[in-house]
Amino acid sequence: MTISQTPTWIGVDWGSSNLRAWAMSESGEVLDRGGSTQGMLSLTPADYEAALLAVIGDWLPEAGALDVLVCGMAGARQGWIEAPYRQVPARLDRLADGAVAPAVEHTRLRVRLLPGLCQHEDDSRHAFDVMRGEETQLAGLVAEAPAFTGTVCLPGTHAKWARLAEGELTGFTTYLTGELYRLLAERSVLAHSLSPSSGGDELADPACASTFIAAVQDSATAPERFSARLFGVRARDLLDDALPAGEGRGARLAARLSGLVIGLELAGARADLERDATVTLIGNEALCARYAMALEALGIANRRLDPERAVLAGLGLARTRLANS
Amino acid sequence: MTISQTPTWIGVDWGSSNLRAWAMSESGEVLDRGGSTQGMLSLTPADYEAALLAVIGDWLPEAGALDVLVCGMAGARQGWIEAPYRQVPARLDRLADGAVAPAVEHTRLRVRLLPGLCQHEDDSRHAFDVMRGEETQLAGLVAEAPAFTGTVCLPGTHAKWARLAEGELTGFTTYLTGELYRLLAERSVLAHSLSPSSGGDELADPACASTFIAAVQDSATAPERFSARLFGVRARDLLDDALPAGEGRGARLAARLSGLVIGLELAGARADLERDATVTLIGNEALCARYAMALEALGIANRRLDPERAVLAGLGLARTRLANS
Repeated sequence: MTISQTPTWIGVDWGSSNLRAWAMSESGEVLDRGGSTQGMLSLTPADYEAALLAVIGDWLPEAGALDVLVCGMAGARQGWIEAPYRQVPARLDRLADGAVAPAVEHTRLRVRLLPGLCQHEDDSRHAFDVMRGEETQLAGLVAEAPAFTGTVCLPGTHAKWARLAEGELTGFTTYLTGELYRLLAERSVLAHSLSPSSGGDELADPACASTFIAAVQDSATAPERFSARLFGVRARDLLDDALPAGEGRGARLAARLSGLVIGLELAGARADLERDATVTLIGNEALCARYAMALEALGIANRRLDPERAVLAGLGLARTRLANS
Repeated sequence: MTISQTPTWIGVDWGSSNLRAWAMSESGEVLDRGGSTQGMLSLTPADYEAALLAVIGDWLPEAGALDVLVCGMAGARQGWIEAPYRQVPARLDRLADGAVAPAVEHTRLRVRLLPGLCQHEDDSRHAFDVMRGEETQLAGLVAEAPAFTGTVCLPGTHAKWARLAEGELTGFTTYLTGELYRLLAERSVLAHSLSPSSGGDELADPACASTFIAAVQDSATAPERFSARLFGVRARDLLDDALPAGEGRGARLAARLSGLVIGLELAGARADLERDATVTLIGNEALCARYAMALEALGIANRRLDPERAVLAGLGLARTRLANS
């Protein structure tokens, strides 16, 4: 596909299981979008250039070279080439300083991989932790509000909670929430009780929504009962006469499981929150709506930032810094 | 195989994935042991008699019929025939009152399936819960100490904590501990960091033992950080220079994961414990040793009861009651 206007740069978010790319105008307008399922887990270093060209080949100019700014797992040790982690505390407008340039054969490509961030254990609240990709979304927030101070939550397979002070990332915590939900829903004894179709839209049903909220509160109130409550999802299916029959039953239990797992995350995250904090959510719309419902159940204010806008602003900030260096 | 003395009854513990059988003398002596991997999950109702005979056929008398007392999943709704759950509170010396007799073709067999126990949600501490098999081990404890009062822990895939008062089961809680460990160790992002061989004997290494204990304390102190600490196992592998290289590294991380999961269970269970309680552990030796280490790290006294002795005493108690009814 050709596009009417020639892009001035290309942004890429290259994850473990897919890649997404955007053709960008100088003013930050998205001219086109592309993507594929050639994520880091399915590629060896020699495959990356071809996988990239398969998505962005049509956007390249007839002459000259185009900046391609890449964040995410392509820069991991098992990725294209390693862009070593930078340590927190880290200024998010300086991610470009850790960028690396993989060798490419195509003369129209000038690729840079942005680094992830790591955190070492210390005497204070910090535990060992890593992120790759989310730091660029956080940089996008800082691109729009350079002195941003507050807490950001990026829900997902490995949900991240980040603390920013004056545009600097001071610390972060990763929760295994999404992966835990999927393992329990699909591979544990609970799989017998959950609807195969659930795990996405069941909260549109008001009964599921209140089940979800009660479960969030259960986990937040007594997180030490988490693994007992997991088995309890199965026991409810066997014993609870108040549950509906059929498909609605599995959806109700899926809502409970989701609430337990997200509630456990929020129990941990709110221990780090300041009083009256507003949490900024960055992530896909349905998942952020679910988190917003959970946060509100715990009385925590929140707002949302579009994840595409965030990653593109972050990549754009890095590109500007590289151009000026 | 033939045995010198004719058994007077046969005990069977028939679980989801295997069955174990014992040829018993009148005085409660074990004359022989048998078993197979024909558990409930691999059988339809029509298969049970043949599966049983494959293990105990050689023990049957030339004349007359032999009592076969069965506990466990064979009495589940998806089992041989259903022995419906009895509700707590339940006197453990009365399990036989809920026994059911499946039809059998073999004239030497007189089979009884013992019921499991269930608990409904109520205003007090009780949540929906079920057990099948463990109630018979608890009955064995009561066979030996009819007025037993105290807390019993049965570690395993679905670990049970039971509260007994004067020989009556007043309530219980199931934790998904063993299943959670296995899912995380084998199927999550942590699988990359753990030794395939670990998850059993790594605590023989003193460094692993102290890693395990620190993890138990971490979960017990701040259970709300559980899912963050799970991801932290992966982050430690990437960042912690203090970890050994090679096989020892994966063992150390497996010890940490095990401590986190068991510690979360203990955090929940100790909330129900009375001050200065002694926990009775019933289960396999290696796992009970691990739990004893974890309990001691939290200052909780414990003692152990051999699981085979417990199940046989429980089955024997039920047999006596059936004979006298």
